[in-house]
Amino acid sequence: MRIAIPLLDGFTALDVVGPYEVLRMLPGSDVVFVGAATGPYADDNGALSLVATATFSAVTEADVLVVPGGPGAWRSLGDESLLDWIRGVHASAEWTTSVCTGSLLLGAAGLLDGLEATTHWGAVDALESYGATYTGRRVVEQPGGIVTAAGVSSGIDMALRLAELIAGRVAAEAFQLAIEYDPQPPFDSGSYAKASQEAKDYLAGHARGTVGPKSAGA
Amino acid sequence: MRIAIPLLDGFTALDVVGPYEVLRMLPGSDVVFVGAATGPYADDNGALSLVATATFSAVTEADVLVVPGGPGAWRSLGDESLLDWIRGVHASAEWTTSVCTGSLLLGAAGLLDGLEATTHWGAVDALESYGATYTGRRVVEQPGGIVTAAGVSSGIDMALRLAELIAGRVAAEAFQLAIEYDPQPPFDSGSYAKASQEAKDYLAGHARGTVGPKSAGA
Repeated sequence: MRIAIPLLDGFTALDVVGPYEVLRMLPGSDVVFVGAATGPYADDNGALSLVATATFSAVTEADVLVVPGGPGAWRSLGDESLLDWIRGVHASAEWTTSVCTGSLLLGAAGLLDGLEATTHWGAVDALESYGATYTGRRVVEQPGGIVTAAGVSSGIDMALRLAELIAGRVAAEAFQLAIEYDPQPPFDSGSYAKASQEAKDYLAGHARGTVGPKSAGA
Repeated sequence: MRIAIPLLDGFTALDVVGPYEVLRMLPGSDVVFVGAATGPYADDNGALSLVATATFSAVTEADVLVVPGGPGAWRSLGDESLLDWIRGVHASAEWTTSVCTGSLLLGAAGLLDGLEATTHWGAVDALESYGATYTGRRVVEQPGGIVTAAGVSSGIDMALRLAELIAGRVAAEAFQLAIEYDPQPPFDSGSYAKASQEAKDYLAGHARGTVGPKSAGA
Protein backbone atom coordinates (compact mmCIF):
# COMPACT_ATOMS: atom_id res chain seq x y z
CA MET A 1 0.00 0.00 0.00
CA ARG A 2 1.74 3.07 -1.30
CA ILE A 3 1.08 6.21 0.78
CA ALA A 4 2.41 9.43 -0.77
CA ILE A 5 2.90 12.61 1.26
CA PRO A 6 4.13 15.68 -0.64
CA LEU A 7 6.50 18.07 1.13
CA LEU A 8 6.65 21.78 0.34
CA ASP A 9 8.88 24.23 2.18
CA GLY A 10 6.70 25.80 4.84
CA PHE A 11 4.58 22.74 5.65
CA THR A 12 3.07 22.28 9.09
CA ALA A 13 4.83 19.36 10.75
CA LEU A 14 1.93 17.88 12.68
CA ASP A 15 -0.24 17.88 9.53
CA VAL A 16 2.27 15.40 8.15
CA VAL A 17 3.25 13.36 11.18
CA GLY A 18 -0.19 12.88 12.74
CA PRO A 19 -1.55 10.83 9.82
CA TYR A 20 1.85 9.31 9.12
CA GLU A 21 2.11 7.78 12.58
CA VAL A 22 -1.20 5.96 12.03
CA LEU A 23 -1.06 5.09 8.33
CA ARG A 24 2.44 3.66 8.53
CA MET A 25 0.97 0.84 10.62
CA LEU A 26 -1.32 -0.32 7.81
CA PRO A 27 -0.40 -3.80 6.63
CA GLY A 28 2.11 -3.52 3.81
CA SER A 29 2.37 0.24 4.16
CA ASP A 30 5.03 1.92 2.08
CA VAL A 31 5.13 5.62 2.91
CA VAL A 32 7.01 7.95 0.62
CA PHE A 33 7.72 11.62 1.23
CA VAL A 34 7.79 13.35 -2.12
CA GLY A 35 9.36 16.67 -3.07
CA ALA A 36 10.31 18.66 -6.14
CA ALA A 37 13.79 17.37 -5.34
CA THR A 38 14.93 14.81 -2.79
CA GLY A 39 16.40 16.16 0.42
CA PRO A 40 15.26 18.21 3.41
CA TYR A 41 12.21 20.50 3.46
CA ALA A 42 11.79 23.06 6.24
CA ASP A 43 8.52 23.48 8.10
CA ASP A 44 6.67 26.76 8.68
CA ASN A 45 8.75 27.48 11.77
CA GLY A 46 12.04 26.75 10.05
CA ALA A 47 13.40 24.67 12.94
CA LEU A 48 12.21 21.29 11.70
CA SER A 49 13.13 19.60 8.45
CA LEU A 50 11.73 16.42 7.00
CA VAL A 51 13.48 14.58 4.20
CA ALA A 52 11.85 13.87 0.84
CA THR A 53 13.14 10.59 -0.52
CA ALA A 54 11.51 10.72 -3.95
CA THR A 55 10.63 13.35 -6.53
CA PHE A 56 7.25 14.26 -7.94
CA SER A 57 8.30 12.93 -11.31
CA ALA A 58 9.24 9.56 -9.80
CA VAL A 59 6.00 9.08 -7.86
CA THR A 60 2.98 9.30 -10.14
CA GLU A 61 0.70 6.79 -8.43
CA ALA A 62 -0.32 5.96 -4.89
CA ASP A 63 -3.04 4.13 -3.03
CA VAL A 64 -3.37 6.95 -0.50
CA LEU A 65 -2.42 10.59 -1.04
CA VAL A 66 -2.11 12.80 2.05
CA VAL A 67 -1.73 16.52 1.32
CA PRO A 68 -0.58 18.51 4.36
CA GLY A 69 -1.14 22.23 4.87
CA GLY A 70 0.77 25.23 6.11
CA PRO A 71 2.06 28.44 4.52
CA GLY A 72 3.80 26.33 1.89
CA ALA A 73 0.43 25.07 0.73
CA TRP A 74 -0.98 28.62 0.52
CA ARG A 75 2.03 29.75 -1.47
CA SER A 76 1.65 26.88 -3.93
CA LEU A 77 -1.98 27.35 -4.90
CA GLY A 78 -0.90 28.67 -8.30
CA ASP A 79 1.78 26.04 -8.90
CA GLU A 80 0.32 24.26 -11.91
CA SER A 81 2.95 21.54 -11.98
CA LEU A 82 2.16 20.65 -8.37
CA LEU A 83 -1.58 20.76 -9.07
CA ASP A 84 -1.07 18.50 -12.09
CA TRP A 85 0.83 16.09 -9.88
CA ILE A 86 -2.00 16.07 -7.35
CA ARG A 87 -4.57 15.45 -10.10
CA GLY A 88 -2.47 12.63 -11.52
CA VAL A 89 -1.92 10.85 -8.22
CA HIS A 90 -5.59 11.35 -7.34
CA ALA A 91 -6.57 9.59 -10.54
CA SER A 92 -4.64 6.54 -9.38
CA ALA A 93 -5.50 6.71 -5.69
CA GLU A 94 -8.17 4.95 -3.73
CA TRP A 95 -8.05 7.75 -1.14
CA THR A 96 -7.14 11.39 -1.68
CA THR A 97 -6.90 13.19 1.62
CA SER A 98 -5.84 16.49 3.12
CA VAL A 99 -5.06 17.94 6.51
CA CYS A 100 -5.58 21.61 7.40
CA THR A 101 -4.95 23.93 4.46
CA GLY A 102 -3.83 21.00 2.36
CA SER A 103 -7.49 21.06 1.33
CA LEU A 104 -6.83 24.33 -0.51
CA LEU A 105 -4.43 22.47 -2.78
CA LEU A 106 -7.12 19.85 -3.47
CA GLY A 107 -9.48 22.74 -4.17
CA ALA A 108 -7.02 24.49 -6.48
CA ALA A 109 -6.59 21.19 -8.30
CA GLY A 110 -10.34 21.17 -8.93
CA LEU A 111 -11.05 18.14 -6.79
CA LEU A 112 -13.47 19.71 -4.30
CA ASP A 113 -15.88 21.52 -6.64
CA GLY A 114 -19.41 20.74 -5.52
CA LEU A 115 -18.29 18.69 -2.53
CA GLU A 116 -18.46 19.18 1.20
CA ALA A 117 -15.04 19.64 2.77
CA THR A 118 -13.18 21.02 5.73
CA THR A 119 -9.95 22.87 6.46
CA HIS A 120 -8.35 24.94 9.20
CA TRP A 121 -10.93 27.31 10.72
CA GLY A 122 -8.90 30.26 9.41
CA ALA A 123 -9.13 29.13 5.78
CA VAL A 124 -12.86 28.66 5.28
CA ASP A 125 -13.36 31.44 2.72
CA ALA A 126 -10.42 30.25 0.66
CA LEU A 127 -11.78 26.70 0.69
CA GLU A 128 -15.20 27.83 -0.48
CA SER A 129 -13.63 29.87 -3.28
CA TYR A 130 -12.92 26.51 -4.93
CA GLY A 131 -16.56 25.50 -5.02
CA ALA A 132 -16.50 23.42 -1.86
CA THR A 133 -19.00 23.75 0.97
CA TYR A 134 -17.30 24.02 4.34
CA THR A 135 -18.67 21.83 7.09
CA GLY A 136 -17.83 22.04 10.76
CA ARG A 137 -17.16 18.29 10.84
CA ARG A 138 -13.63 17.32 11.83
CA VAL A 139 -13.30 14.68 9.11
CA VAL A 140 -15.35 14.90 5.93
CA GLU A 141 -15.72 11.87 3.65
CA GLN A 142 -17.02 12.41 0.15
CA PRO A 143 -17.61 10.30 -2.97
CA GLY A 144 -14.55 9.49 -4.99
CA GLY A 145 -12.48 8.66 -1.93
CA ILE A 146 -11.89 12.29 -1.00
CA VAL A 147 -11.42 12.86 2.72
CA THR A 148 -10.55 16.27 4.15
CA ALA A 149 -9.63 16.97 7.77
CA ALA A 150 -9.80 20.18 9.79
CA GLY A 151 -6.78 22.00 11.24
CA VAL A 152 -3.42 20.44 12.05
CA SER A 153 -4.14 17.86 14.79
CA SER A 154 -7.27 16.57 13.05
CA GLY A 155 -5.12 14.44 10.77
CA ILE A 156 -4.83 11.87 13.56
CA ASP A 157 -8.60 11.43 13.72
CA MET A 158 -8.79 11.32 9.93
CA ALA A 159 -6.10 8.67 9.67
CA LEU A 160 -7.79 6.44 12.23
CA ARG A 161 -11.02 6.57 10.22
CA LEU A 162 -9.07 5.87 7.03
CA ALA A 163 -7.36 2.94 8.73
CA GLU A 164 -10.79 1.54 9.59
CA LEU A 165 -11.95 1.91 5.99
CA ILE A 166 -8.79 0.24 4.68
CA ALA A 167 -7.95 -2.41 7.26
CA GLY A 168 -11.05 -2.74 9.41
CA ARG A 169 -12.17 -1.63 12.80
CA VAL A 170 -10.00 -3.94 14.91
CA ALA A 171 -6.84 -2.84 13.13
CA ALA A 172 -7.71 0.82 13.52
CA GLU A 173 -8.46 0.35 17.20
CA ALA A 174 -5.11 -1.40 17.58
CA PHE A 175 -3.36 1.56 15.96
CA GLN A 176 -5.14 3.93 18.34
CA LEU A 177 -3.87 1.82 21.24
CA ALA A 178 -0.35 1.72 19.81
CA ILE A 179 -0.13 5.51 19.83
CA GLU A 180 -2.02 5.65 23.16
CA TYR A 181 -4.42 8.14 21.62
CA ASP A 182 -6.65 8.76 24.59
CA PRO A 183 -6.63 12.55 24.30
CA GLN A 184 -6.98 14.60 27.46
CA PRO A 185 -6.42 18.22 26.47
CA PRO A 186 -6.04 20.36 29.60
CA PHE A 187 -8.43 23.00 28.18
CA ASP A 188 -11.41 22.99 25.81
CA SER A 189 -10.17 25.59 23.38
CA GLY A 190 -9.60 23.47 20.30
CA SER A 191 -12.25 24.91 18.02
CA TYR A 192 -13.20 28.41 17.03
CA ALA A 193 -16.64 27.93 18.56
CA LYS A 194 -15.21 26.90 21.92
CA ALA A 195 -12.18 29.19 22.28
CA SER A 196 -12.41 32.34 24.36
CA GLN A 197 -12.10 35.79 22.86
CA GLU A 198 -8.88 36.28 24.85
CA ALA A 199 -7.35 33.20 23.25
CA LYS A 200 -8.42 34.40 19.79
CA ASP A 201 -6.99 37.86 20.47
CA TYR A 202 -3.72 36.33 21.69
CA LEU A 203 -3.46 34.22 18.57
CA ALA A 204 -4.27 37.11 16.26
CA GLY A 205 -1.39 39.02 17.82
CA HIS A 206 0.96 36.10 17.59
CA ALA A 207 3.02 35.30 14.52
CA ARG A 208 1.57 31.84 14.20
CA GLY A 209 2.22 30.79 10.67
CA THR A 210 0.01 27.74 10.44
CA VAL A 211 -2.66 29.34 8.39
CA GLY A 212 -0.26 31.19 6.19
CA PRO A 213 -0.74 34.40 4.25
CA LYS A 214 -3.99 35.05 6.03
CA SER A 215 -3.39 35.66 9.71
CA ALA A 216 -4.13 32.90 12.17
CA GLY A 217 -7.03 34.93 13.40
CA ALA A 218 -8.56 35.30 9.96
CA MET B 1 13.54 30.10 25.23
CA ARG B 2 15.75 27.25 24.09
CA ILE B 3 13.91 23.96 23.55
CA ALA B 4 16.17 20.98 22.89
CA ILE B 5 14.89 17.74 21.35
CA PRO B 6 17.41 14.92 20.94
CA LEU B 7 17.12 12.67 17.91
CA LEU B 8 18.25 9.05 17.91
CA ASP B 9 17.84 6.70 14.96
CA GLY B 10 14.64 4.79 15.60
CA PHE B 11 12.69 7.59 17.28
CA THR B 12 8.90 7.71 17.08
CA ALA B 13 7.97 10.68 14.93
CA LEU B 14 4.80 11.76 16.72
CA ASP B 15 6.63 11.74 20.06
CA VAL B 16 8.74 14.52 18.61
CA VAL B 17 6.30 16.47 16.49
CA GLY B 18 3.33 16.53 18.87
CA PRO B 19 5.12 18.60 21.52
CA TYR B 20 7.12 20.48 18.90
CA GLU B 21 4.03 21.82 17.18
CA VAL B 22 2.86 23.36 20.48
CA LEU B 23 6.13 24.45 22.10
CA ARG B 24 7.39 26.18 18.98
CA MET B 25 4.61 28.73 19.49
CA LEU B 26 5.97 29.82 22.88
CA PRO B 27 7.10 33.44 22.80
CA GLY B 28 10.77 33.56 21.86
CA SER B 29 10.91 29.82 21.23
CA ASP B 30 14.11 28.52 19.70
CA VAL B 31 13.76 24.82 19.01
CA VAL B 32 16.86 22.81 18.25
CA PHE B 33 16.98 19.18 17.13
CA VAL B 34 20.14 17.65 18.50
CA GLY B 35 22.02 14.56 17.36
CA ALA B 36 25.35 12.83 17.80
CA ALA B 37 26.09 14.43 14.43
CA THR B 38 24.10 16.90 12.38
CA GLY B 39 22.03 15.50 9.54
CA PRO B 40 19.05 13.20 9.08
CA TYR B 41 17.86 10.64 11.63
CA ALA B 42 15.42 7.91 10.59
CA ASP B 43 12.35 7.08 12.63
CA ASP B 44 11.32 3.63 13.83
CA ASN B 45 9.57 2.91 10.54
CA GLY B 46 12.50 4.04 8.43
CA ALA B 47 10.36 6.06 6.01
CA LEU B 48 10.59 9.40 7.82
CA SER B 49 13.75 11.34 8.58
CA LEU B 50 14.12 14.47 10.67
CA VAL B 51 17.22 16.60 10.50
CA ALA B 52 19.40 17.36 13.52
CA THR B 53 20.90 20.81 13.17
CA ALA B 54 23.22 20.73 16.19
CA THR B 55 25.36 18.18 17.97
CA PHE B 56 25.16 17.04 21.57
CA SER B 57 28.52 18.65 22.26
CA ALA B 58 27.28 22.01 20.93
CA VAL B 59 24.05 22.07 22.95
CA THR B 60 24.74 21.69 26.65
CA GLU B 61 21.98 23.89 28.06
CA ALA B 62 18.29 24.41 27.40
CA ASP B 63 15.24 25.85 29.06
CA VAL B 64 13.12 22.88 28.05
CA LEU B 65 14.35 19.38 27.24
CA VAL B 66 11.96 17.04 25.42
CA VAL B 67 13.13 13.43 25.21
CA PRO B 68 11.12 11.38 22.70
CA GLY B 69 10.77 7.60 22.75
CA GLY B 70 10.80 4.72 20.33
CA PRO B 71 13.08 1.76 19.71
CA GLY B 72 16.01 4.16 19.48
CA ALA B 73 15.40 5.17 23.09
CA TRP B 74 15.28 1.53 24.21
CA ARG B 75 18.52 0.79 22.38
CA SER B 76 20.27 3.75 24.00
CA LEU B 77 19.55 2.99 27.65
CA GLY B 78 23.17 1.97 28.17
CA ASP B 79 24.68 4.87 26.22
CA GLU B 80 26.53 6.70 28.98
CA SER B 81 27.53 9.64 26.83
CA LEU B 82 23.86 10.24 25.94
CA LEU B 83 22.82 9.83 29.57
CA ASP B 84 25.54 12.29 30.62
CA TRP B 85 24.20 14.74 28.07
CA ILE B 86 20.67 14.35 29.43
CA ARG B 87 21.90 14.88 33.00
CA GLY B 88 23.84 17.95 31.94
CA VAL B 89 20.99 19.59 30.05
CA HIS B 90 18.61 18.70 32.87
CA ALA B 91 20.87 20.55 35.31
CA SER B 92 20.41 23.70 33.24
CA ALA B 93 16.76 23.24 32.33
CA GLU B 94 13.65 24.59 33.91
CA TRP B 95 11.66 21.70 32.44
CA THR B 96 12.88 18.19 31.68
CA THR B 97 10.22 16.23 29.85
CA SER B 98 9.68 12.97 28.05
CA VAL B 99 7.15 11.40 25.72
CA CYS B 100 6.46 7.67 25.56
CA THR B 101 9.58 5.59 26.22
CA GLY B 102 11.69 8.72 26.36
CA SER B 103 10.95 8.38 30.08
CA LEU B 104 13.18 5.30 30.13
CA LEU B 105 16.12 7.50 29.15
CA LEU B 106 15.28 9.88 31.98
CA GLY B 107 15.12 6.85 34.25
CA ALA B 108 18.42 5.46 33.02
CA ALA B 109 19.94 8.88 33.65
CA GLY B 110 18.82 8.59 37.26
CA LEU B 111 16.30 11.42 37.08
CA LEU B 112 13.16 9.48 38.02
CA ASP B 113 14.34 7.61 41.12
CA GLY B 114 11.69 7.98 43.81
CA LEU B 115 9.33 9.95 41.56
CA GLU B 116 5.98 9.24 39.99
CA ALA B 117 6.16 9.01 36.21
CA THR B 118 4.48 7.63 33.14
CA THR B 119 5.46 6.06 29.84
CA HIS B 120 3.94 4.00 27.05
CA TRP B 121 1.67 1.32 28.50
CA GLY B 122 4.00 -1.34 27.12
CA ALA B 123 7.02 -0.04 29.06
CA VAL B 124 5.75 0.10 32.63
CA ASP B 125 8.05 -2.56 34.07
CA ALA B 126 11.09 -0.98 32.46
CA LEU B 127 10.13 2.41 33.85
CA GLU B 128 9.74 1.05 37.35
CA SER B 129 13.13 -0.68 37.14
CA TYR B 130 14.60 2.82 37.45
CA GLY B 131 12.96 3.49 40.79
CA ALA B 132 9.97 5.38 39.40
CA THR B 133 6.38 4.65 40.32
CA TYR B 134 4.16 4.35 37.25
CA THR B 135 0.89 6.23 37.36
CA GLY B 136 -1.98 5.90 34.93
CA ARG B 137 -2.11 9.67 34.49
CA ARG B 138 -1.47 10.91 30.96
CA VAL B 139 0.85 13.71 32.06
CA VAL B 140 2.78 13.51 35.33
CA GLU B 141 4.36 16.60 36.87
CA GLN B 142 6.94 16.14 39.58
CA PRO B 143 9.23 18.37 41.64
CA GLY B 144 12.34 19.57 39.88
CA GLY B 145 10.48 20.41 36.69
CA ILE B 146 10.24 16.82 35.53
CA VAL B 147 7.20 16.07 33.40
CA THR B 148 6.62 12.69 31.79
CA ALA B 149 3.89 11.87 29.28
CA ALA B 150 2.32 8.55 28.32
CA GLY B 151 2.57 6.94 24.88
CA VAL B 152 3.20 8.77 21.61
CA SER B 153 0.20 11.11 21.14
CA SER B 154 0.22 12.20 24.81
CA GLY B 155 3.02 14.64 24.05
CA ILE B 156 0.42 17.06 22.67
CA ASP B 157 -1.45 17.13 25.97
CA MET B 158 1.82 17.43 27.86
CA ALA B 159 3.01 20.35 25.76
CA LEU B 160 -0.24 22.25 26.22
CA ARG B 161 0.11 21.92 29.99
CA LEU B 162 3.75 22.98 29.76
CA ALA B 163 2.75 25.98 27.65
CA GLU B 164 0.31 26.98 30.37
CA LEU B 165 3.03 26.71 33.02
CA ILE B 166 5.46 28.74 30.92
CA ALA B 167 3.29 31.31 29.13
CA GLY B 168 -0.03 31.21 30.95
CA ARG B 169 -3.45 29.82 30.33
CA VAL B 170 -4.58 32.20 27.56
CA ALA B 171 -1.46 31.51 25.51
CA ALA B 172 -1.86 27.76 25.90
CA GLU B 173 -5.52 27.96 24.91
CA ALA B 174 -4.51 29.99 21.85
CA PHE B 175 -2.01 27.31 20.87
CA GLN B 176 -4.71 24.65 21.23
CA LEU B 177 -6.92 26.70 18.90
CA ALA B 178 -4.06 27.22 16.43
CA ILE B 179 -3.64 23.46 16.00
CA GLU B 180 -7.42 22.96 16.16
CA TYR B 181 -6.91 20.35 18.85
CA ASP B 182 -10.49 19.34 19.45
CA PRO B 183 -9.87 15.61 19.34
CA GLN B 184 -12.63 13.35 18.11
CA PRO B 185 -11.17 9.87 17.85
CA PRO B 186 -13.56 7.59 15.99
CA PHE B 187 -13.12 4.83 18.60
CA ASP B 188 -12.38 4.68 22.30
CA SER B 189 -9.42 2.35 22.15
CA GLY B 190 -6.62 4.69 23.17
CA SER B 191 -5.65 3.15 26.49
CA TYR B 192 -4.84 -0.37 27.59
CA ALA B 193 -7.80 -0.30 29.96
CA LYS B 194 -10.25 0.67 27.24
CA ALA B 195 -8.99 -1.34 24.26
CA SER B 196 -10.66 -4.61 23.32
CA GLN B 197 -8.86 -7.93 23.54
CA GLU B 198 -9.15 -8.23 19.75
CA ALA B 199 -7.31 -4.94 19.30
CA LYS B 200 -4.59 -6.04 21.74
CA ASP B 201 -4.24 -9.37 19.96
CA TYR B 202 -4.00 -7.63 16.60
CA LEU B 203 -1.32 -5.32 17.90
CA ALA B 204 0.66 -8.13 19.52
CA GLY B 205 0.74 -9.87 16.16
CA HIS B 206 1.71 -6.72 14.31
CA ALA B 207 5.30 -5.56 13.89
CA ARG B 208 4.61 -2.23 15.54
CA GLY B 209 7.96 -0.93 16.63
CA THR B 210 6.85 1.91 18.87
CA VAL B 211 7.56 0.15 22.10
CA GLY B 212 10.77 -1.31 20.87
CA PRO B 213 12.61 -4.41 22.01
CA LYS B 214 9.62 -5.46 24.08
CA SER B 215 6.69 -6.30 21.84
CA ALA B 216 3.93 -3.76 21.50
CA GLY B 217 1.72 -6.15 23.39
CA ALA B 218 4.09 -6.43 26.36
